[in-house]
Amino acid sequence: MLGAIEAGGTKFVCAIGTEDGKLIKRLEFPTEIPEKTIPRVIEFFRAHQISALGIGSFGPLDLNKSSDTFGYITSTPKPGWVNFPFVETMIEALNVPVAFDTDVNAAVWGEFLFGARKGLASCLYITVGTGIGAGAVVDGKLLHGLSHPEMGHIHLRRHPEDQFAGFCPYHTDCLEGLAAGPALEKRWGTKGTGLSEDHPAWGMEAYYLAQALMQYILILSPEKIIMGGGVMKQAHLFPRIHQKVEQLSSGFLSLPAMKSYIVPPMLENDSGIMGALMMAKEIYDGKKCKK
Amino acid sequence: MLGAIEAGGTKFVCAIGTEDGKLIKRLEFPTEIPEKTIPRVIEFFRAHQISALGIGSFGPLDLNKSSDTFGYITSTPKPGWVNFPFVETMIEALNVPVAFDTDVNAAVWGEFLFGARKGLASCLYITVGTGIGAGAVVDGKLLHGLSHPEMGHIHLRRHPEDQFAGFCPYHTDCLEGLAAGPALEKRWGTKGTGLSEDHPAWGMEAYYLAQALMQYILILSPEKIIMGGGVMKQAHLFPRIHQKVEQLSSGFLSLPAMKSYIVPPMLENDSGIMGALMMAKEIYDGKKCKK
Ligand SMILES: Nc1ncnc2c1ncn2[C@@H]1O[C@H](COP(=O)(O)OP(=O)(O)O)[C@@H](O)[C@H]1O
Ligand SMILES: Nc1ncnc2c1ncn2[C@@H]1O[C@H](COP(=O)(O)OP(=O)(O)O)[C@@H](O)[C@H]1O
Ligand SMILES: [Zn+2]
Ligand SMILES: [Zn+2]
Repeated sequence: MLGAIEAGGTKFVCAIGTEDGKLIKRLEFPTEIPEKTIPRVIEFFRAHQISALGIGSFGPLDLNKSSDTFGYITSTPKPGWVNFPFVETMIEALNVPVAFDTDVNAAVWGEFLFGARKGLASCLYITVGTGIGAGAVVDGKLLHGLSHPEMGHIHLRRHPEDQFAGFCPYHTDCLEGLAAGPALEKRWGTKGTGLSEDHPAWGMEAYYLAQALMQYILILSPEKIIMGGGVMKQAHLFPRIHQKVEQLSSGFLSLPAMKSYIVPPMLENDSGIMGALMMAKEIYDGKKCKK
Repeated sequence: MLGAIEAGGTKFVCAIGTEDGKLIKRLEFPTEIPEKTIPRVIEFFRAHQISALGIGSFGPLDLNKSSDTFGYITSTPKPGWVNFPFVETMIEALNVPVAFDTDVNAAVWGEFLFGARKGLASCLYITVGTGIGAGAVVDGKLLHGLSHPEMGHIHLRRHPEDQFAGFCPYHTDCLEGLAAGPALEKRWGTKGTGLSEDHPAWGMEAYYLAQALMQYILILSPEKIIMGGGVMKQAHLFPRIHQKVEQLSSGFLSLPAMKSYIVPPMLENDSGIMGALMMAKEIYDGKKCKK
């Protein structure tokens, strides 16, 4: 048995599953301060015999294995989680190998392995929810570099009719500050769920998201783009985004047919937890081989 | 002996070298129409016994091995080179395995293998010359996806004092249209070489380049950034760019010290040809193994 955690800013998902990707058991609870949340996590996994654990977590994270704070959540605005030693805490409590990556890298990994992969070596997953973040697979592996990407914080050209200041605590009007769920809500004075399909909010939303996708395409050239998160539940955003990406790339890039290129998650709400489960499998396989 | 070509929009560089990266012979000539240029290339390599050839070429290129036009230069504005079957032509003439990639991927590969690599798994090379392009190494390998990246054509926020329309034939005011050598020349009415160090041109140039680097950093997270090409011969651009990238990332990303993070090429003008030579080595080694 393997363990998986999807640690989100709003909720935690914990699951037990098999090496070939069957979820056996799953538990969700809200994200509170670590002192409340972590004991629930440990209790859940202690009730099962797991041989490895995969974690996809909200960030920013320290993923640098030679750093003193490897495995920490670093500078999050989330109360109580700044400098939380996630990996260390889980190893101490459960005594199993722990794989650790961003929530969006876990999600892209799940989608890549179980959904998008057929014949592809790369893909990108972007979530548009409370925040905006993206993870990527390049040449069959999760993208890392100096650190994990922070694709939600790129700067875009503003929509000419957008008067909203922006809502990112770091950059005010980066992509996340202009197009995440809370930005939508602040700009229009009501949550996305309360705006009808013909509201101008959605044209503007698609304008920003399409522009962001174009930056990702020009820089990373992913073979598929998966868009998830609460805001993307508005299914009419897909054709809007397709049309705008087509417009932006026309005469310059030849992209696949939009309907199969920019798509919703195949695993629906399980992309992240399935990716984390497969991260657990890989760290377990890796340790076995070393013995 | 191995062969290497750096095919630029302005000039071709042909070279013969050894497997461990010693250049034995090297010839440069201007890029004319293929009917004039290619016979010179073939003549050069026929005079030597080469066992493989690496090509780093101006693009866009078709790098998709399962495509009918694999190995072609595709839609370039360069007269005569549209749909030129580069790989096919060289294989027919020389009967050796041919490795093919963009000029900037060849350059980043040369820099990665001989310059920047120590202890790193990733880096990015951007050239600011007649055009702007960038190549990247991710996890020790050249970055490819759907196609090669087109990082020179991202959109940026305009400098508030910039009245220049832009000069990209595809997008008017993308990065290349605002900051490549010809854009500088059109905006200020004189070539970059004719502008003094305290001319406002350079603050604006650094503004656009730093903004572009930030997009690359947020999306790819490279461990090192190498800036080459004619415009970057203006060495005072480096401290200007360092300062602006520092400003843009401050309080959000922790980047290495700028002086060692954003640097000029270590191989000076040989990044591309050395990378192409190593591409030849790899395709040769690959074919040997298969036998
Ligand atoms: N159906 C919907 N339509 C538009 N916005 C939605 C919808 N469902 C959730 N949202 C918005 O998405 C955000 C929550 O994103 P979600 O991905 O569900 O969670 P989180 O990002 O916290 O993991 C909130 O800002 C919410 O208003
Ligand atoms: N020292 C310099 N200072 C500023 N601009 C320069 C300098 N040298 C070349 N350039 C500009 O760079 C461009 C040529 O770029 P280069 O990298 O040399 O060639 P290419 O991109 O064609 O391979 C021209 O627009 C030229 O004006
Ligand atoms: Zn931001
Ligand atoms: Zn352009």
